Amino acid sequence: MGKNRLEAFSDGVLAIIITIMVLELKVPHGTDWATLQPLVPVFLSYVLSFVYVGIYWNNHHHLLHAAKHVSASVLWANLHLLFWLSLFPWATGWMGENHFAALPSAAYGFVLLMAAIAYYLLQRAIVATDGEHSPLQHALGADWKGKLSPVLYLVGMLSAFEVNWLSQALYVLVALLWLVPDKRIERVVHHAD
Amino acid sequence: MGKNRLEAFSDGVLAIIITIMVLELKVPHGTDWATLQPLVPVFLSYVLSFVYVGIYWNNHHHLLHAAKHVSASVLWANLHLLFWLSLFPWATGWMGENHFAALPSAAYGFVLLMAAIAYYLLQRAIVATDGEHSPLQHALGADWKGKLSPVLYLVGMLSAFEVNWLSQALYVLVALLWLVPDKRIERVVHHAD
Amino acid sequence: MGKNRLEAFSDGVLAIIITIMVLELKVPHGTDWATLQPLVPVFLSYVLSFVYVGIYWNNHHHLLHAAKHVSASVLWANLHLLFWLSLFPWATGWMGENHFAALPSAAYGFVLLMAAIAYYLLQRAIVATDGEHSPLQHALGADWKGKLSPVLYLVGMLSAFEVNWLSQALYVLVALLWLVPDKRIERVVHHAD
Amino acid sequence: MGKNRLEAFSDGVLAIIITIMVLELKVPHGTDWATLQPLVPVFLSYVLSFVYVGIYWNNHHHLLHAAKHVSASVLWANLHLLFWLSLFPWATGWMGENHFAALPSAAYGFVLLMAAIAYYLLQRAIVATDGEHSPLQHALGADWKGKLSPVLYLVGMLSAFEVNWLSQALYVLVALLWLVPDKRIERVVHHAD
Repeated sequence: MGKNRLEAFSDGVLAIIITIMVLELKVPHGTDWATLQPLVPVFLSYVLSFVYVGIYWNNHHHLLHAAKHVSASVLWANLHLLFWLSLFPWATGWMGENHFAALPSAAYGFVLLMAAIAYYLLQRAIVATDGEHSPLQHALGADWKGKLSPVLYLVGMLSAFEVNWLSQALYVLVALLWLVPDKRIERVVHHAD
Repeated sequence: MGKNRLEAFSDGVLAIIITIMVLELKVPHGTDWATLQPLVPVFLSYVLSFVYVGIYWNNHHHLLHAAKHVSASVLWANLHLLFWLSLFPWATGWMGENHFAALPSAAYGFVLLMAAIAYYLLQRAIVATDGEHSPLQHALGADWKGKLSPVLYLVGMLSAFEVNWLSQALYVLVALLWLVPDKRIERVVHHAD
Repeated sequence: MGKNRLEAFSDGVLAIIITIMVLELKVPHGTDWATLQPLVPVFLSYVLSFVYVGIYWNNHHHLLHAAKHVSASVLWANLHLLFWLSLFPWATGWMGENHFAALPSAAYGFVLLMAAIAYYLLQRAIVATDGEHSPLQHALGADWKGKLSPVLYLVGMLSAFEVNWLSQALYVLVALLWLVPDKRIERVVHHAD
Repeated sequence: MGKNRLEAFSDGVLAIIITIMVLELKVPHGTDWATLQPLVPVFLSYVLSFVYVGIYWNNHHHLLHAAKHVSASVLWANLHLLFWLSLFPWATGWMGENHFAALPSAAYGFVLLMAAIAYYLLQRAIVATDGEHSPLQHALGADWKGKLSPVLYLVGMLSAFEVNWLSQALYVLVALLWLVPDKRIERVVHHAD
């Protein structure tokens, strides 16, 4: 039961984050094609962040499915993840409205990095709560995606100041890596059912 | 269980979209009848979009009821649909605040068109997941409404630049077509129960 | 099952309406007591509307509890109710920011009136769907509150232009009338359980 | 069943409050480090309020778990709590944007105080509804945290005008006190299961 409410609350927050992000896509005042042009980078940032929130929702869904118990540390690790995800609209807006300038792009990468770390801590909290036979521990295996992503975010952050396009390319690359849902967890969970 | 969370998340996003749209109806500064006048087209656009989101919520409800399994492709097809629906507030605001000018009206039609395509892809993903005995496949039948709507949206989009009123008339017409809930699906689902 | 999703969606919309209303309470720029003064009428309007949305949520809860089936007409009657409730933030903001001026106060009453009519129609749709042995029909009885409220809203609307304070007094009075939850429905439902 | 819907609605409102608060963290116009500087106090206020809403969500979860029945008084006590929590975004924004000035800091403490009182009243309403064998009554015990917090908020409020940093220090201290979840309730509930 506790798990249901944790899911419901997280779903609520993620649903609102995804929808609030679109508010940065301001309604333009003119009515010709030229007024749409400055919106293009804002729109592209929105698409990228929408995909990221979708990935988090998706993986969060599988993660909680593999969790057996909800302890206080799981609750707070989950809130910690939601905190960093709640900064997505701000980081997305800042990067998009400034056409992928250096500092906003690095800030976007920083928020991605912190969310990835928070997700990792949530995994640890669930495994610690469920004990040595945690189905999640088994499911995660080597977790190479979870280990590679923060490194790529960090490289993306730093490269924002030098080779700007590399920064965006890395953020898109990590999103593509994760678009494939987490088969490992799914497989083990289905075994358990 | 997976289906429940998919519904809950979609409901959350749809509930927020429908409520965020009303934020484009700005609180006027004056207090006489004249200050309400420029709000009339914004209000009418809001009514139209509210009806559209209501239709999507309604049909989405029946669609998921007819789905047996939720696969990764269903999850992402659903997020893809939510993405286009999340642009409704923006398109509604742009069209309403510019009193149904040509380009904003065409943009509104474009968002409607993309949402219709996304809904079609979601139907396909569910049928592909459930296999040849998919109750949804059976329920959809010829799906003439699903096939006619994108055509009418496209005509609406193009006519926005030439015969402006035709554009709005077509968007209203498609909404009326769909106001009748999808009896086909409902019928088959009730048979199955 | 259909009823659950209808409740969840309505809860979502009501939760967002109640929280979006507070956005009209703008963060002031100064830091002394004087900057709080113009916020007083905005705050009072917010309190009144919060109570109204709370009443609707409460009664909606009992109403759906007493409903046996959800038909297409119930779904649309419910969306129609949510439509008028979604205008509460706008009407609240307009009335509050203009210190209860005549037209905004009348507009507030109009939205209250339309929501009351929509609630009545939803009751009718549920009774029509459940047929002659509808527990709701039995529970409603004479429904004097439901019949008196629209009359008082109408008087409130009209008096806004002549005796301004009467208008506010009537809106507060109706809220107080409804603060007592709908015992009639509750009693019959408990009998049925 | 009534309890489920009460939880769902409260979760919805809390999820929206937590996400709306982030809207006060405005997207800056520049792209250098200097533009981030005025955001620091806004960000710190956001972190503090996020933690507070997280604490309320957490404790509310345990509180309702320990409740056996939902009466009208519980429903309204819950709405009363949500009302004061809905003012968090406003108080957070005002305090953060004015860099912890005296009056906004006191106002923040006032909202915290009122929410604490509302939480206390909700506890009372649940205990009164469940009667003398209320598991919550048993679980609360001496409730020293619940009694100490309002006193500290009050001292924080008053000290805002004299020793400004003490005010913030007290708000942070109370948050830390509560970060430990309410073991008492948890323990008794687990006993009961």
